[in-house]
Amino acid sequence: MMKISEKELTRRGFITRVGQGLVATGVTAPLLKNAHAQLRVPDPPGKKLGWAIVGLGSLAINQILPAFAKCEKSKVVAFVSGHPDKANKLALRYNVNPKNIYNYQNYDSIKDNPEVDVIYIVLPNGMHAEYTIRGLQAGKHVLCEKPMASTSAECRQMIDAAKKADRKLMIAYRCHYEPYNKEAIRIARAHELGPTQMILADAGFAAGDPAQWRLHKALSGGGSMMDIGIYALNAARYLTGEEPTEVNAMSFTDRNDPRFKEVESNVIFQLRFPSGVIANCSSSYSYFHQSHYRVMGTEARLEMDPATWYNGNRMWIERGNKIEQIELQEADHFALEMDHMSDCVMQNKEPLTPGEEGLRDLTIIEAVYEAAKSGKTVKL
Amino acid sequence: MMKISEKELTRRGFITRVGQGLVATGVTAPLLKNAHAQLRVPDPPGKKLGWAIVGLGSLAINQILPAFAKCEKSKVVAFVSGHPDKANKLALRYNVNPKNIYNYQNYDSIKDNPEVDVIYIVLPNGMHAEYTIRGLQAGKHVLCEKPMASTSAECRQMIDAAKKADRKLMIAYRCHYEPYNKEAIRIARAHELGPTQMILADAGFAAGDPAQWRLHKALSGGGSMMDIGIYALNAARYLTGEEPTEVNAMSFTDRNDPRFKEVESNVIFQLRFPSGVIANCSSSYSYFHQSHYRVMGTEARLEMDPATWYNGNRMWIERGNKIEQIELQEADHFALEMDHMSDCVMQNKEPLTPGEEGLRDLTIIEAVYEAAKSGKTVKL
Repeated sequence: MMKISEKELTRRGFITRVGQGLVATGVTAPLLKNAHAQLRVPDPPGKKLGWAIVGLGSLAINQILPAFAKCEKSKVVAFVSGHPDKANKLALRYNVNPKNIYNYQNYDSIKDNPEVDVIYIVLPNGMHAEYTIRGLQAGKHVLCEKPMASTSAECRQMIDAAKKADRKLMIAYRCHYEPYNKEAIRIARAHELGPTQMILADAGFAAGDPAQWRLHKALSGGGSMMDIGIYALNAARYLTGEEPTEVNAMSFTDRNDPRFKEVESNVIFQLRFPSGVIANCSSSYSYFHQSHYRVMGTEARLEMDPATWYNGNRMWIERGNKIEQIELQEADHFALEMDHMSDCVMQNKEPLTPGEEGLRDLTIIEAVYEAAKSGKTVKL
Repeated sequence: MMKISEKELTRRGFITRVGQGLVATGVTAPLLKNAHAQLRVPDPPGKKLGWAIVGLGSLAINQILPAFAKCEKSKVVAFVSGHPDKANKLALRYNVNPKNIYNYQNYDSIKDNPEVDVIYIVLPNGMHAEYTIRGLQAGKHVLCEKPMASTSAECRQMIDAAKKADRKLMIAYRCHYEPYNKEAIRIARAHELGPTQMILADAGFAAGDPAQWRLHKALSGGGSMMDIGIYALNAARYLTGEEPTEVNAMSFTDRNDPRFKEVESNVIFQLRFPSGVIANCSSSYSYFHQSHYRVMGTEARLEMDPATWYNGNRMWIERGNKIEQIELQEADHFALEMDHMSDCVMQNKEPLTPGEEGLRDLTIIEAVYEAAKSGKTVKL
């Protein structure tokens, strides 16, 4: 039986600490932070690299294009789209020269456009490999959305293409660049919770329209594991800073559900890391949403919920009989990752999340599928 | 990518609903509830059965003996202990006749004591089978702490002994009797969250003194899975109302830690249920404590944290973009389960958590150990 039963921990009883050198003073802090951000006048921009956005879906329209306003080193200069109407409309809004609008047929001619330094692939997963490789062959640097591709074999082809072209290839793991997840990584790896014993990470949501590309294997490469489970997987890896050596998994998909004729829905998977940390993770297209992790140290636990949303993430640490909420200055994840890419190109540095990072996740996702199918631990 | 990123869900923004016919009105409710409880004058007791407590450790002293004050159908009348000093002291406090103090040698003579109707086994796990069987053979009904025994084979012997003696045998799964977990069961099984897709359940704490009986296999039967992981396992079963058909597991124990020379520490395990629900669970003697579960339905999720403490448990439901805290009148878990047992004896009814319930958990725990060892899914 537990000896801790007498404690009265309450979620209402949060105490707040000032984040690592960042503004935060309790309940009113978000308002203060916003006011502060509005008042600060940005410095005049230095050199900005020119970006082409390939694929004008909801992620591009709602997140990526607005994020350029907050970039210091990146500007949008070109679109690649199969929908000229949409591209022209967005070109007006974002002041993109209509001559810089490409379609999937004349995409390769982007090589002749000196305004474009970096290509951002925001297409369905099944098209990542082809359009990344064509972009690299056009002599451009490429930022590619996650999952990197449908298979680890495709990932390897993409990495090879980048090497051959001597261009940068980065995968858009935005959580590596934003303050909350970076702070969680710092806390966990510094053993501020004591040595990590276990990671629990869960990511999923209820998929809607059965016609969406995510639910069609040729375009998505797979189901919830590829699209959203990858957040839980990647979190387990970045919170430990280690690579798993063993994978277990179990999955269930209701094949009578019209959404799941081709791809999997519910997956639970386990990872063993070399230090002894074990991770229990879940992924779903069927359950009500969650984006959540717990880092279980010997002396405290860190929780994020939501953990990996575009904004509004929350972090707290439970230690002794206190819950301490950690509030940090939020920042636009997409602006941060795009500027990181631009910076790597300008400074000739390797991105923090290169093609190899995407390959590692795809290799593990394939192991998850194999473990779920075979009922056996897959060794990596 | 998730479409839910715009929502601003805050844990501070809890809204409160009145529980199912129970007093609850927001933040001040706990105080009001206490005041209410203090003012209510209990009815004069009806018939109470006489209970003997076997094993006077911290659970008996701190939880079980004080709980008799809240029982309607149960009174403590006898002790069985290897420590006469402790037994005599407690006999004074609880008005137990000194002639009703037994030791482990003369325990069987309890059969001649008509004051004792029910025996409650609160010994280390490794002694459960022997003292339960001897109690049944003495013609008494037995409530036995969980885990029921060290092995499923012992559980079967205990069930057989109860049948042979025609006595009741109940296992002390107190969470089946207390309002919060009962309400979670009702909500999940009524599909108020939509059909359940996944259960996530975690239970563990950092074990202290290496000399304690829990860390010695002969007394404990096993490590964290037996003592605390059983809460996560049992929750997955009671929240679904189903029996698992498959088990995966992975474990890690630091054998250089003086606490873990004999028993396991960290275990993660997965369960598949016939309806398609899959469960991801964890157990630990090494991590900072947690007692937690999430029921992931298609339309909402129910969370309890803490979920299975003696008191102070908290429950909330997240649905749409609202978090709804559910506050219920707390009640003493031990008083509830003891009165259930007394009632079953008086009414000749089968307990809600009979020996078979304990056997099912032990069978699954053995499967967890086997799966962790073999690296293969164990089918049940």
